[in-house]
Amino acid sequence: MQVLQSIPFETIGVAVFALSGALMAAHKGMDPFGFALLATLTGVGGGTLRDLLIGIRPVFWVGDPTDVLACLIVAELVFVLGPRRVAMMEGGRRGRLLLWADALGLALFAVTGTGKALAAGVPALSAVALGTTTATFGGIIRDIFAGTTPLVLRQEIYVTAAALGASVMVALQAAGVEPFLSGAAGFAAAFTLRALALLRGWSLPAFPRRD
Amino acid sequence: MQVLQSIPFETIGVAVFALSGALMAAHKGMDPFGFALLATLTGVGGGTLRDLLIGIRPVFWVGDPTDVLACLIVAELVFVLGPRRVAMMEGGRRGRLLLWADALGLALFAVTGTGKALAAGVPALSAVALGTTTATFGGIIRDIFAGTTPLVLRQEIYVTAAALGASVMVALQAAGVEPFLSGAAGFAAAFTLRALALLRGWSLPAFPRRD
Amino acid sequence: MQVLQSIPFETIGVAVFALSGALMAAHKGMDPFGFALLATLTGVGGGTLRDLLIGIRPVFWVGDPTDVLACLIVAELVFVLGPRRVAMMEGGRRGRLLLWADALGLALFAVTGTGKALAAGVPALSAVALGTTTATFGGIIRDIFAGTTPLVLRQEIYVTAAALGASVMVALQAAGVEPFLSGAAGFAAAFTLRALALLRGWSLPAFPRRD
Repeated sequence: MQVLQSIPFETIGVAVFALSGALMAAHKGMDPFGFALLATLTGVGGGTLRDLLIGIRPVFWVGDPTDVLACLIVAELVFVLGPRRVAMMEGGRRGRLLLWADALGLALFAVTGTGKALAAGVPALSAVALGTTTATFGGIIRDIFAGTTPLVLRQEIYVTAAALGASVMVALQAAGVEPFLSGAAGFAAAFTLRALALLRGWSLPAFPRRD
Repeated sequence: MQVLQSIPFETIGVAVFALSGALMAAHKGMDPFGFALLATLTGVGGGTLRDLLIGIRPVFWVGDPTDVLACLIVAELVFVLGPRRVAMMEGGRRGRLLLWADALGLALFAVTGTGKALAAGVPALSAVALGTTTATFGGIIRDIFAGTTPLVLRQEIYVTAAALGASVMVALQAAGVEPFLSGAAGFAAAFTLRALALLRGWSLPAFPRRD
Repeated sequence: MQVLQSIPFETIGVAVFALSGALMAAHKGMDPFGFALLATLTGVGGGTLRDLLIGIRPVFWVGDPTDVLACLIVAELVFVLGPRRVAMMEGGRRGRLLLWADALGLALFAVTGTGKALAAGVPALSAVALGTTTATFGGIIRDIFAGTTPLVLRQEIYVTAAALGASVMVALQAAGVEPFLSGAAGFAAAFTLRALALLRGWSLPAFPRRD
């Protein structure tokens, strides 16, 4: 348990979101500094918004830039790999790896965002809202910058998975379950739901579009 | 007067902006969680930016999530109503209700944003800038997320109405008029101007476009 | 030296970015309040994000709205000039002046952003990240609002110039060079690199695009 708790989940979340940003930069044909910018914005964007909203200052990466460094390393590794090896990583299906990195980041940030909000003593609904925002914001920045339709707007279950993970964590913690276990359950709930959405194309009933 | 002053204008502004966000989600055919996200971002976006810029922390909805709850209720009510009833609410003219909800939110936020800035003791021009920003930002977020041309960029009078309302309020309060009355005057000025723009297609002379 | 140090570089940076915003508003055929909004967002956007991230509150223009006033004056001057004189300023090549104003703002903000971050005592890598963010963010806001492809996404050297200027400044200051001189060197590095990119179409090797 002690070992598990020392795992830097936040940095892992930052790194996988940075990976999704770097892969988007690859799809858009950007230069090494474009990779660095898009990977870093995607990686630290959600946590930055969370800290701003809660009022933690400076935001997490300003005092200790380890997570920025992680983003830069991920970005340049993907750039250096080159198109042939990136295509191999993607297993022939373009954008698939990006979606899975995004899913992992979504679940990790739903939990770390909710956890930091609860630690700051905010009400339960605010904690869920902050967790969901933290989890979805990095990907939103990435997609708006890259000029593609944000994942949040697609029919697939996405925001739902983040909200579920955040809600599970808040509910369990309110029920007295200790932070690490409730976080693990929240992560599992969010990632499983998002994974099922990716694998089986699950979606919620949507409002009939009239455009 | 006492009764009037106890009206929660901020929450009303949040709710009507949330309604405009939910109607946009309906036009885009989103799922229930997409409705929740777009309505909440639109509803609390402007006030969130205002609090960040002034330095109020945490931002207003984190400590007391009543306004987030209002956004979620509005979002799901619109979703549950379904396309036929939403079309009826819109009176056969798609997007019209969205524009009027947006106009009401614009006028309310111009005044609550300016009021909160004045209460924080900022200079007059900053108060006008903060009121205008607060009023326009929620709609900008909504439109950018939904991938439609932001209302602020259309030829119709829009930013102008928010700036007018904020300026009227600041000028009256500087002249010694008490906050509630100067706010009411600012609201009336902003809403009337925006309403006339919607009803009569009023616009300011624009720079001749050369695209 | 004393004279040079009293030059308000921050306000100059704000004004040239505001000019680039006003020229974009001209290209888009906006009304006077649209000019004011786009110029102000572009002018103060980068510095606002910087202050939020570092935790300086309220942000710089709220306490002293001089820079907002500068943006408004620049915006309305461009509007009043009218299309014929703006076209003359642009020397027959549309968008060229916008690019040069943007380049000047980029170099100035890379240095003022980095300087404010160093003054707040943040680690070196964070200072570079903050300087780069400050320098690029105003232009990103302008381009997203105006619905054009952000300059940061084009193949030309752009983020690279900001990152170079910020890095030069941080390195020199770490080596004991005094702030003003290291800032001047950083400015020169950023502006020269961006100018060469504009004049000669320099670009870095980019990832081969597969869209």
